[in-house]
Amino acid sequence: MAITTADTSAVTTDTPLLDKISSPADLRRLPVESLPQLCAEIRRVLIAECSVNPGHFASSMGAVEFTVALHYVFDTPYDRLVWDVGHQAYGHKLLTGRRDSFSGNRTLGGLSGFPNPAESPYDTFTAGHASNSISAALGMAVAARLNPEPGKPRRNTVAIIGDASISGGLAFEGLNNAANTPNNLLIVLNDNDMSIDHNVGSLNSYLAHLTTSPGYNRMRYRVYKGLRKARLVSDRSRGAIMRFNNSLKSLLVREQNIFEGLNIRYFGPFDGHDVMTIVRVLTDIRNMDGPRLLHLRTIKGKGYAPAEADPAKWHAPGKFDPATGRRACDTSDAGAKAPARLKYQEVFGKTLLELARNDQRIVGITAAMSTGTSMNIMQEEMPGRVFDVGIAEGHAVTFAGGLAKDGMRPFVAIYSSFLQRGYDHIIHDVAIQGLPVVFCIDRAGLVGEDGVTHHGALDLAYLRTIPGMTVTAPSDAATLRNLMFTAANTGDGPFAIRYPRGNSDSNAADSTMTILPLGRGRKLTEGSDIAVLSIGTVAEDVSRAIDILRDKGISVSHYDMIFLKPIDEDILNEVATLGVPVVTVEDGTVNGGLGGAVAEWMTAHGHKSTVYRLGIPDEFVTQGTPGQLKHLCGFDAEGIADSIIRALDTAKPEQ
Amino acid sequence: MAITTADTSAVTTDTPLLDKISSPADLRRLPVESLPQLCAEIRRVLIAECSVNPGHFASSMGAVEFTVALHYVFDTPYDRLVWDVGHQAYGHKLLTGRRDSFSGNRTLGGLSGFPNPAESPYDTFTAGHASNSISAALGMAVAARLNPEPGKPRRNTVAIIGDASISGGLAFEGLNNAANTPNNLLIVLNDNDMSIDHNVGSLNSYLAHLTTSPGYNRMRYRVYKGLRKARLVSDRSRGAIMRFNNSLKSLLVREQNIFEGLNIRYFGPFDGHDVMTIVRVLTDIRNMDGPRLLHLRTIKGKGYAPAEADPAKWHAPGKFDPATGRRACDTSDAGAKAPARLKYQEVFGKTLLELARNDQRIVGITAAMSTGTSMNIMQEEMPGRVFDVGIAEGHAVTFAGGLAKDGMRPFVAIYSSFLQRGYDHIIHDVAIQGLPVVFCIDRAGLVGEDGVTHHGALDLAYLRTIPGMTVTAPSDAATLRNLMFTAANTGDGPFAIRYPRGNSDSNAADSTMTILPLGRGRKLTEGSDIAVLSIGTVAEDVSRAIDILRDKGISVSHYDMIFLKPIDEDILNEVATLGVPVVTVEDGTVNGGLGGAVAEWMTAHGHKSTVYRLGIPDEFVTQGTPGQLKHLCGFDAEGIADSIIRALDTAKPEQ
Repeated sequence: MAITTADTSAVTTDTPLLDKISSPADLRRLPVESLPQLCAEIRRVLIAECSVNPGHFASSMGAVEFTVALHYVFDTPYDRLVWDVGHQAYGHKLLTGRRDSFSGNRTLGGLSGFPNPAESPYDTFTAGHASNSISAALGMAVAARLNPEPGKPRRNTVAIIGDASISGGLAFEGLNNAANTPNNLLIVLNDNDMSIDHNVGSLNSYLAHLTTSPGYNRMRYRVYKGLRKARLVSDRSRGAIMRFNNSLKSLLVREQNIFEGLNIRYFGPFDGHDVMTIVRVLTDIRNMDGPRLLHLRTIKGKGYAPAEADPAKWHAPGKFDPATGRRACDTSDAGAKAPARLKYQEVFGKTLLELARNDQRIVGITAAMSTGTSMNIMQEEMPGRVFDVGIAEGHAVTFAGGLAKDGMRPFVAIYSSFLQRGYDHIIHDVAIQGLPVVFCIDRAGLVGEDGVTHHGALDLAYLRTIPGMTVTAPSDAATLRNLMFTAANTGDGPFAIRYPRGNSDSNAADSTMTILPLGRGRKLTEGSDIAVLSIGTVAEDVSRAIDILRDKGISVSHYDMIFLKPIDEDILNEVATLGVPVVTVEDGTVNGGLGGAVAEWMTAHGHKSTVYRLGIPDEFVTQGTPGQLKHLCGFDAEGIADSIIRALDTAKPEQ
Repeated sequence: MAITTADTSAVTTDTPLLDKISSPADLRRLPVESLPQLCAEIRRVLIAECSVNPGHFASSMGAVEFTVALHYVFDTPYDRLVWDVGHQAYGHKLLTGRRDSFSGNRTLGGLSGFPNPAESPYDTFTAGHASNSISAALGMAVAARLNPEPGKPRRNTVAIIGDASISGGLAFEGLNNAANTPNNLLIVLNDNDMSIDHNVGSLNSYLAHLTTSPGYNRMRYRVYKGLRKARLVSDRSRGAIMRFNNSLKSLLVREQNIFEGLNIRYFGPFDGHDVMTIVRVLTDIRNMDGPRLLHLRTIKGKGYAPAEADPAKWHAPGKFDPATGRRACDTSDAGAKAPARLKYQEVFGKTLLELARNDQRIVGITAAMSTGTSMNIMQEEMPGRVFDVGIAEGHAVTFAGGLAKDGMRPFVAIYSSFLQRGYDHIIHDVAIQGLPVVFCIDRAGLVGEDGVTHHGALDLAYLRTIPGMTVTAPSDAATLRNLMFTAANTGDGPFAIRYPRGNSDSNAADSTMTILPLGRGRKLTEGSDIAVLSIGTVAEDVSRAIDILRDKGISVSHYDMIFLKPIDEDILNEVATLGVPVVTVEDGTVNGGLGGAVAEWMTAHGHKSTVYRLGIPDEFVTQGTPGQLKHLCGFDAEGIADSIIRALDTAKPEQ
């Protein structure tokens, strides 16, 4: 597993140019010839920093040159750079006053791992969910026209988007609208033929084709430049450019570009690692009117040999040794330690394969998260029954609806916060018809270091309100397996199973599976002072809280609900009859989820129980370790114990 | 306004061929030469039926020929026809055993106005929200391959999609995935250059361009047919077809088709009203492998002169006189009656223009609902400040986020059930950044005749769980105006205002506007036996219920909450202190909305109030008049009164 081909020159951390840049204004004072050196320095810092403080490494390595070029050519932050997804923006962070704080990337109180407007005026828009940059930047470009700043030059707006993101429906909607209103939007297409895994989709094949026949576009660009310099065409007249473009096209090759089919001027492809060429091209097209797209070919992991050789592995490599390219996770793989606990995603992945071997109806669907959800485990054995549709969550859900309508039993694995993109599709294309689609919702609840855009806080609440949905969350690996088995074998209708990022309680996915009764929870602990209802893996935190409280003489009854919908009314009745305060605990919003369901049921049935709802508060939560964030939100073991003590204190005067 | 050019021959209702068709199997026994006559008969029935029982008229008139041709060529229902939106499928309903029941179209207990799998095996998938047919049909096509029926021929799958729907991101995601897996999906593009209003977007311009240069495609199709008949190319070899296509392309015109850029074989454009040609083409391409697209040019309203002349007006014309083309709504316009009450959408439209005249930051955004939301009122006066982005709800929201980020105050007007498509975009692209986007959510709650896919049942529940959202619903026209004024002038953060389809309480939008205090409701009626909290226009139903109950000696306290979030805790405290049962009433799901918020607050604060939640039950609701459906759901005046009486009966033994 060890890679010994790392370029040792990359390990030096000498950065004389970068040291002088406290903002892009400093960058713009450098001669253009020095930019390659600056790029090399940025790479050294990325290697040094990411090797000790893990992050999204390979994407940012591939984006160095155009990041430098964009800040060099455009007057940021007055001109707007809008990143897409944004984990490729580490170089952007280093250039925009955050070099010193970069060591705190992705930590509580430190930098966000994504562009974040709350952090810097250079981060113009929230990034994290793919494909939004074109639409957002188009809004800014139109705002600049409608609402110009007096005495200021025309504001330029640039959307940066990867070739994986551009396949999302939102990006297409943005492209389709870009030419319909006067604007000067520039779209930079960062084409590395990768998302986390390799890209899929016809548009991607199309982009590859463009690359293999660049001659025409290069020639057109040169001819255009020549004519412009000779003042034979006017930059300001978009109509003229278009006519010129059309006539040139008919003269030269008569091939229609898919972007030009959408009335977006296309330039490229260019080498995305030739910083001086990118500066020249950007300068040339900067002041043009109308939407235009610059296609750059980049290499994910560029400049660090191990990452170039296996960019998927180096997407988020964890800690590594810069000199040898050995990743910490490789090292521990090689060690002779006790078998590690499986991640929940691995329990899902192994169980799905096991189920699919015995049930021909089962197919797997994911949306550019094959490795991240461990659906690759089934995919390797049954490539014809797994569909990675790319960044297209809505399509993933509707496609699953079609499959289910004609007899298949699709398992759709998508991260919780990304599944929000498929919300209407779950309702309209699955639930209305009562189709048996199984939603396996990974990264549910607080996800940790990925922060505000990635927490899966809302799924329990929004799924519960959809008629006919079964909504569940397992408290352990065995229950996850049982829920999947139940979903595969029980009746009709959509079935959601949500589970968190990170390790399960088990080192194997081999428990015997049984069908669980729908809407039935279980009592984990008998107690008399207060009742705790939890759903999902927070049961473990509740158990630890109960241990703490036992020492203080407090007796807690604890129920693992498993099903949010249908909810176990026997448990609710039992708890209500006890006449003690009720605490609900969930790794999800405190509004409308388990706590909401319990409050609704209690008040509707005339019970007088006080219900304390613990979970993610009604605010957007920052990044940090999962433990830190649970503590912040008050549902780690200590937080739960404290809340129970407070609840009992409050209850006393009334008793 | 009267139109006298109606083709009177269209008024005859003689239908000898249609009379013999009880299923498509009967249709397939007709000689192809008789199909034009059958089409004429279908049109006569559509005119006769829609003139007395209003529906989506013009779309279905334009779809007659290809509907007949599809059922003639394909073995429905074994072969799958998947409609998109589906209001063009009336002809399909007439041909599939529903002629006798068609007079009950869009009525309670009658036919759905859209394809509905619960209604007929010929309706293969839910339709209503645009752009889902390609993804759903692709799922079916893949299911047919993975799970073939023993002894049966290959199943064919056809997605029918309009040129407006195909601009939606979901349709693009479907197209982008269609070529990535073996399938035999046929996409029929029904291109009438209209949605409800005229289409927007670059793809639409592109389609228009294809139509103006059809020679190449026709020639290619003929050459292909000739070669196929001569067995020089094999239908079964998709690779060969593609290579053939590419070489032919390079031979003939070297123009790249946008669909072929996505690896989808393109045929067309053909005249969508030449039924015999469509039958011939469909027969030719029916058994081909691989995804392919047939582009048909149609005329919305075809065959009824008034509708052809103004298809937008005739999209859903209401009742009309078939002979004269005079619509009932035109007649009442011409009458000398008292001024009609304004629809809520008109109050919105007039108020938006009024606000925009005084505030340069205000821009309007809608997604192919300019007329439907009355945003056309502002659009006519300020075309540069209104953006109709086409069927692209997600883009509409994210684009608004970009505008708001750079100083504008966008008002986004989208129907409630369609805004579900923008759910993640509201969270990720607006709420996380606390951007001041105003969501004006039309058609909220039960919409009536459009039925299950169009009810806006979930918005209150899903918006409430989004951190930082202000969520409101006015109970009358003046409050709608005040909420819009408040949203335009108050602080930051997203602001949602939801209101129903139909008439307001006012015949003018000219009340003086004031800024409402955030999170403040109002007491409408003082009472002592029970407290009713309502949000939105159901306040009127509650008022009528109170009148009923007053006669029975029951005294009801009634609060109009106006704000769901932040909720008025003073009112909740007041109500809790009364110690009476609480009834919540909302035109939205009973789970997680106002009722949920009240239950959560009561139980969290240790109050013992019983809370009865009235609203849309946790099920999908059928079509009918709004009054019928409110009654079904139990929150018309009688239903509310009954619930209050029952609540008091239940409460008595405990008092």
